[in-house]
Amino acid sequence: MKPLKVNKRIILGPGPSSANPDVLKSMSNPILGYLDPDFFKILDEVRESLKNLYRTKDHAFALSGSGSSGMEAGLTCLAERGDKVIVCAYGYFCERQILMAERLGLEIIPLRSEWGKQMDPSLLEDALKQHPDTKLVVATHAETSTGVLQNIEELGKIVSKSDALFMIDCVTSIAGTEILFDDWNIDFAYSGSQKCLASPPGLSPCAMSEKAYQYIKNRKTKPSSWYLDLSLVNDYWGSEHVPQYTVAVSSIYALYESLRLLDEEGIENRWNRHKVNAEKLRAGLTEIELNLPISPNDRLDQLTVVTKPDHIDDVEFRNKLIYDYNIEIGRGLGDFAGKVFRIGLMGESCKSEYVDQILDVFRKEI
Amino acid sequence: MKPLKVNKRIILGPGPSSANPDVLKSMSNPILGYLDPDFFKILDEVRESLKNLYRTKDHAFALSGSGSSGMEAGLTCLAERGDKVIVCAYGYFCERQILMAERLGLEIIPLRSEWGKQMDPSLLEDALKQHPDTKLVVATHAETSTGVLQNIEELGKIVSKSDALFMIDCVTSIAGTEILFDDWNIDFAYSGSQKCLASPPGLSPCAMSEKAYQYIKNRKTKPSSWYLDLSLVNDYWGSEHVPQYTVAVSSIYALYESLRLLDEEGIENRWNRHKVNAEKLRAGLTEIELNLPISPNDRLDQLTVVTKPDHIDDVEFRNKLIYDYNIEIGRGLGDFAGKVFRIGLMGESCKSEYVDQILDVFRKEI
Repeated sequence: MKPLKVNKRIILGPGPSSANPDVLKSMSNPILGYLDPDFFKILDEVRESLKNLYRTKDHAFALSGSGSSGMEAGLTCLAERGDKVIVCAYGYFCERQILMAERLGLEIIPLRSEWGKQMDPSLLEDALKQHPDTKLVVATHAETSTGVLQNIEELGKIVSKSDALFMIDCVTSIAGTEILFDDWNIDFAYSGSQKCLASPPGLSPCAMSEKAYQYIKNRKTKPSSWYLDLSLVNDYWGSEHVPQYTVAVSSIYALYESLRLLDEEGIENRWNRHKVNAEKLRAGLTEIELNLPISPNDRLDQLTVVTKPDHIDDVEFRNKLIYDYNIEIGRGLGDFAGKVFRIGLMGESCKSEYVDQILDVFRKEI
Repeated sequence: MKPLKVNKRIILGPGPSSANPDVLKSMSNPILGYLDPDFFKILDEVRESLKNLYRTKDHAFALSGSGSSGMEAGLTCLAERGDKVIVCAYGYFCERQILMAERLGLEIIPLRSEWGKQMDPSLLEDALKQHPDTKLVVATHAETSTGVLQNIEELGKIVSKSDALFMIDCVTSIAGTEILFDDWNIDFAYSGSQKCLASPPGLSPCAMSEKAYQYIKNRKTKPSSWYLDLSLVNDYWGSEHVPQYTVAVSSIYALYESLRLLDEEGIENRWNRHKVNAEKLRAGLTEIELNLPISPNDRLDQLTVVTKPDHIDDVEFRNKLIYDYNIEIGRGLGDFAGKVFRIGLMGESCKSEYVDQILDVFRKEI
């Protein structure tokens, strides 16, 4: 094997995004034991910073796994086999939640609504009336398959009138747009380190309400997964640091640094950077007469969906971008497969100069 | 938050161990997309190197999770709810396998035998005769709670006469001692990146037989875990690179580098380094009249168990080592709790100079 050599790509896909160089460098720090008192200090700071980021008074931690491990952890822990779960389904990652819930033996009420639009909250209101015994409601904040931001606050109000727990996917929204965990009545939120946080992939930063924690501690059967048991993970990240598994120490260093840089930039400034660059991208794409199928009211700043012109070959075009321009953009998924491109501007990849570069390429090649 | 500053520890515990500085540095490389053709080349080289390391013609990959995620993946995928599973149990991590299997609704036949000794293979022979409908047999190669190496070749011969699949834990043995996956009739083996491979924690490098892969593809019900579905992980690592989740890209860079360094050192030399340093440590401990409770025939080179003298306080002593000498050693677990210390010499932590340092400290402080 030859020594590793990696070309620098401009990653403008749906994720992972580029990581900040200082964050990457932080992983050169020597390993500490996962029960070392020095490591606990780092862990405690990461936990408090995540609580602040999610705006919760309750619990926060990061799973040693991808965003999908957070998704599965929530579904595994917050309902028992046979329990009724409502999944608000309006994109590819919502469908992944359904796939996972099926494997776990949950009774799924899928609330399927049109891809590329915000869901009508009355759908959820009706479903909860029809199924008052629902144990869990699941929704995705920012669906990268459609580029739509959902109104979680509104959905949370509806769920709070029922006995159900409320779980949301924040993989793409975390640090890119406002999340108010406590105020929006959320019980469990999972995200990923590799998007607006500008860290490498490998961690799923989560927040959990005390109500959800107590539910897991007191459910009739233990969650089928020990690795993804959120109460065990929480007990390791809590003040007692009860040992569970060996966490990804270097990835925690990276998350620490990315949270520190976020703090330095200021959360509102980070959100604003995502907004400004997305607006610039959308204006540029419109100027070169490309169609943006998502309504302005529903659009996500972190990911822009643009209709592929008929005369362009999907795979050939994206390969040309990689090989000739060193730029990665995303393909369409599910209902949007072969019909759109997806351009992500997240975290370290969310830069005005990259917007200029991708617009230049589109002008030349389309 | 202040910029991250991490003190360098001499980690002589049961794991994680120190990582090689070049391996850590490799994580400063820029992120590539998990579907980037350049990343696939890296992935392919890691896969082939792991196949070679495990000595298998079939499949290899790394899970984005700790060694325990590999443990749970095997138990989740290689048996269905209600199936009979024999767990050879002679230590703390074998008991973790039982905990996980219970949560998954498997029917467990625990073959408990004395901690600190090799298991008598006839126990397994008898159990398989008594339970010819056993679907899976689970054993741990190197148990870090006891410091005992088990005769997996012998157990594999016995399992191969039955219809059961054979799964082994190689978390501590990988790259520290010989493993012959195909010759020993193993169907699934999981390990960890953070011990004799000298990588940071966060990946579980695995090998899987074609028989196990076909079993998972054709079982009656899908594995309850999508994240840990070994057939999906294998399909992503295979030549088609079917997307599953966003893998821990930087950790894969680290694993690549650690496999390259292993190749450079030579696998037999790496095993020998573990043997030579363990012998030096054991000789030194014996010289200062400390008791090594594990019989010389059963001893593991990667981890040495030493009886705690009565006049020494367990917690106080280990804290003194951390705060005064910057050295971490392990505590006793389960049956050995409070009775022993565990000294690991694994991967980057397996150095002659560290043996000298820990012996010096023991001479002074005991």
